[in-house]
Amino acid sequence: MKYSKLFGKTVKEVSGDVKLVSHRLLYQGGFVRESVAGRYYFLPLGIRVNDKIVKIVEEEMDKAGAQKMITPVLHPIELWEETNRTNSVGFELMSLTDQRGARFALGGTAEEMMVDLVRKFNISYKDLPFNIYQFSQKFRDELRARGGLLRVREFLMKDAYSFHSDEKDFKKEYKNMGDTYTRIFERMGLKTVVIESDNGYIGGDYCHEFVVESDAGESRFLMTDDKSYAAHEEVAVFKREMMNEKEEMLPMEVKDAPRGPTIADGVKLYGQPAWKQIKSIVYVTGSGEKVMAVMRGDLEINEVKLKHSLGGAEIRQATEEEIKELGSVVGFVSPLKLKIKKIGDISLKTVRNFSTGADEYRKDTLNVNYERDFTVDKLADIALPPADCLSSEGKKMVDGKGIEVGNIFQLGTHYTTRMKGALFTDQDGREKPYYMGCYGIGIGRTLATVVEVFNDEKGIIWPKSIAPYQVHLVSLGSDEKIRKTADKLHDKLEKAGIEVLYDDRDRQAGEKLADADLIGIPVRLVISKRTLESDSVEWKERNRKETENVKLTEIQKKIKVYYS
Amino acid sequence: MKYSKLFGKTVKEVSGDVKLVSHRLLYQGGFVRESVAGRYYFLPLGIRVNDKIVKIVEEEMDKAGAQKMITPVLHPIELWEETNRTNSVGFELMSLTDQRGARFALGGTAEEMMVDLVRKFNISYKDLPFNIYQFSQKFRDELRARGGLLRVREFLMKDAYSFHSDEKDFKKEYKNMGDTYTRIFERMGLKTVVIESDNGYIGGDYCHEFVVESDAGESRFLMTDDKSYAAHEEVAVFKREMMNEKEEMLPMEVKDAPRGPTIADGVKLYGQPAWKQIKSIVYVTGSGEKVMAVMRGDLEINEVKLKHSLGGAEIRQATEEEIKELGSVVGFVSPLKLKIKKIGDISLKTVRNFSTGADEYRKDTLNVNYERDFTVDKLADIALPPADCLSSEGKKMVDGKGIEVGNIFQLGTHYTTRMKGALFTDQDGREKPYYMGCYGIGIGRTLATVVEVFNDEKGIIWPKSIAPYQVHLVSLGSDEKIRKTADKLHDKLEKAGIEVLYDDRDRQAGEKLADADLIGIPVRLVISKRTLESDSVEWKERNRKETENVKLTEIQKKIKVYYS
Repeated sequence: MKYSKLFGKTVKEVSGDVKLVSHRLLYQGGFVRESVAGRYYFLPLGIRVNDKIVKIVEEEMDKAGAQKMITPVLHPIELWEETNRTNSVGFELMSLTDQRGARFALGGTAEEMMVDLVRKFNISYKDLPFNIYQFSQKFRDELRARGGLLRVREFLMKDAYSFHSDEKDFKKEYKNMGDTYTRIFERMGLKTVVIESDNGYIGGDYCHEFVVESDAGESRFLMTDDKSYAAHEEVAVFKREMMNEKEEMLPMEVKDAPRGPTIADGVKLYGQPAWKQIKSIVYVTGSGEKVMAVMRGDLEINEVKLKHSLGGAEIRQATEEEIKELGSVVGFVSPLKLKIKKIGDISLKTVRNFSTGADEYRKDTLNVNYERDFTVDKLADIALPPADCLSSEGKKMVDGKGIEVGNIFQLGTHYTTRMKGALFTDQDGREKPYYMGCYGIGIGRTLATVVEVFNDEKGIIWPKSIAPYQVHLVSLGSDEKIRKTADKLHDKLEKAGIEVLYDDRDRQAGEKLADADLIGIPVRLVISKRTLESDSVEWKERNRKETENVKLTEIQKKIKVYYS
Repeated sequence: MKYSKLFGKTVKEVSGDVKLVSHRLLYQGGFVRESVAGRYYFLPLGIRVNDKIVKIVEEEMDKAGAQKMITPVLHPIELWEETNRTNSVGFELMSLTDQRGARFALGGTAEEMMVDLVRKFNISYKDLPFNIYQFSQKFRDELRARGGLLRVREFLMKDAYSFHSDEKDFKKEYKNMGDTYTRIFERMGLKTVVIESDNGYIGGDYCHEFVVESDAGESRFLMTDDKSYAAHEEVAVFKREMMNEKEEMLPMEVKDAPRGPTIADGVKLYGQPAWKQIKSIVYVTGSGEKVMAVMRGDLEINEVKLKHSLGGAEIRQATEEEIKELGSVVGFVSPLKLKIKKIGDISLKTVRNFSTGADEYRKDTLNVNYERDFTVDKLADIALPPADCLSSEGKKMVDGKGIEVGNIFQLGTHYTTRMKGALFTDQDGREKPYYMGCYGIGIGRTLATVVEVFNDEKGIIWPKSIAPYQVHLVSLGSDEKIRKTADKLHDKLEKAGIEVLYDDRDRQAGEKLADADLIGIPVRLVISKRTLESDSVEWKERNRKETENVKLTEIQKKIKVYYS
């Protein structure tokens, strides 16, 4: 491919809102362009990388026994109503109505579509298990789309759905898919951490995220030193250590409290650590019910866990006005008097003689003890793990941050019991709902993650397996012999099946070499007056500093060896 | 691939509204399933064929110098407004609004998106020409979706867009794409006829359809015996021969006409051929104007041409009431008195002494002559070519019917003058609008067309190049040795890179062989007690009657030779 004819060449300028390295490099290198926020064109260079990632995913999925197929992009809304996901999905569903009045959702994820397909067939236990997957465009009506390909409104996703006769059979596939994902990412040079995570709008009992460690990521996770436990902060379980179990319980008393509304204000007033206070936050659920979350003052609320402890209800924090209506005051709310549902974090059991508000402005209650002075409707794990916490087994945990590139979900019979007729005939002749799992990989996000991980100040450093081309041939100088030799080498390499991008432009050496570094193809070949003196070409690998001269007659072989 | 584990096995029953052979066979064979009308799942067998077609198209497009990329599926509606296509598109545009209030069209075709992308770059004549293409899901809000994959509401399309500095350069690419299309369809065994056609909602001056002759098709076209001229009936030009030029013009007279309202009624009353009458049809344009189309009574109106002669206006036939308001009567409308715009077909010049209505119930005017007694505002070609007509050069033309599988369009500067800033810098330093073309192939429709062309009473007969698998291995009998030999052969062939579908089910011979015929893989291999006696396997090609025994040791070689 001659660079002079390539559509989508490099540019120097970057537009204002480009923050992430991957966004900047993919833009400058000519891999992608934004249409409107969160919707991307993949240019010829970009689609080549995209297609190589797709091919790796496809090969590994096939090797794992999964079968490729495809569903329509528009999903009949009736299917999403069957599972009640039109109300509950955590991403905003995009939908439209056609001119005959039929309503459709734009595919965000395809559980209902796959179950609807499967129930069109008569399937017996003999046909099970199977795992069907597709590559298809997915849509999310996100309010905010982050820069670049990491959080977009439209993207290509590999989504797979497996159908089983029982949980035992499913668990084999769950492991099989987990291993397959690790292999897929390894083939692109990505090391993944597998963490327990929240299943969000998908349903089911458990799931895991595949995370590539990176500061550009949005996933915070906790992991024990020995890596035996790793979980997203939203689901991570951690130990609440006893703080002052030897202290004697003192009598409760109400006192004037000349402080501001925060825990920090309490620390200042009493000269005691934050854990000595109770944190009480009032929430309002989707149905309008008021609920209080109660925990140790040094911990932060984990709204994902709180939601689960409320059976999945939508929640928001109560306003100052709503707290007043309850008969309390912001900053002085306590679990002692208000007659609303209370969910307490298990940390309440670890402290003696808490201080807390007295539901009056600038009044506190001191020496409050859980069980002696108040209880809650439900004691649960509703706190975010703080830095340097311990695992439930008492092992030290470290914080990690990363990009979620894939996830695997146990679905069980969540969909197949909600959708009518999603049944197979078992060995005993009886009809039973399928036991399911699902498995996703975002292709564009994976591509951007590779760039976040593999780059330097000059540009991208593509791994061999997904580089847009195998070699970047550059001719330097306008000498006729140089041009002819480069032309010939380009044709010869292409003929030999080597993917070559050939910068044949009449430009300055500096510009051409900078472009090669920016685009980031693993091998750069330079033909110049100097190299021609020894009938050779300069070989430089993108991730090394050294160059070497290779005879023109030897270059094809060297490339083949490098890529074998 | 073991058939026992394949998702999407054959079925015997067909649902009610399956009319086309391709629809029935693709359903029964387990290639596709309908989600809702006009929206299809491709099952594992179907996606394999789909992917092979995609690969052929991609290879040939790349060979022709085009560059693959991809646009988002959701197009900002502002772009379609720039070219005024939100009002004028011939297919109904599907659109939606996101939660921030931004409106999008679901991609039906991508001219605006491509021009919008290209104008983001600084492009000079040196970068031209280029041709960028994509495979992407397209949406049409059709009121009626025909059975099967021939007319659907959602489909994968290869659409390409070329950008040139001038018409001369474009014409080279138009030919290049035409040749490429012929090669693409030839590789799937399809013979195409290239016909002139209407550009519909696309714009531009001319275009060509690639048609595969088939009774299942919707495209009627006319072609001269020597194939020097071929055109869709909507655009075909044909000769109007003089019918009675020697007859003397007689004086006009009004007479009672005890006849019904049709041309046939006139033929009965006067005992004269249909061409002796004038056909006058009143239309109402989108803006409410009334227009009369006037032509010889034996010809049919060509509404596509009529629309063009009205500058592209939308039209519909007037109601009885509207004709009454004009001061005439249905069945007796004439071009003599009504003061509305009249478009006459050039056939009006070929007849002397027409009879026509007199704008009164059961009154006709006889001996009416064009130019002597009436004229029209515009004389044009607005008739459909009848059977057995002559080309404009007087050559005999025959009727053809076929399926449109691809089309190529000249766009000129239609889009680049309507969209601001779609300019390149020419050699003289001045900015000029790009000269464009576009080129489409429907992948699913091509797949269905192959099935329409290649089938027999037993099932599909796939061409080698796009068969879902290369061989269909069938074990007959439950003998352990048969199973083991078949298992081993399956593994061996797969290892050798041969695509094999292996029917390992414990079923009757008749059922397994019928399934193989239905699915239509080019080579069937049977292992049975009988073949094992000679350490061989039975070889049968799907499109031949004969079978032969091939030694197990020779089979791999024979397959490779067959597919080389």
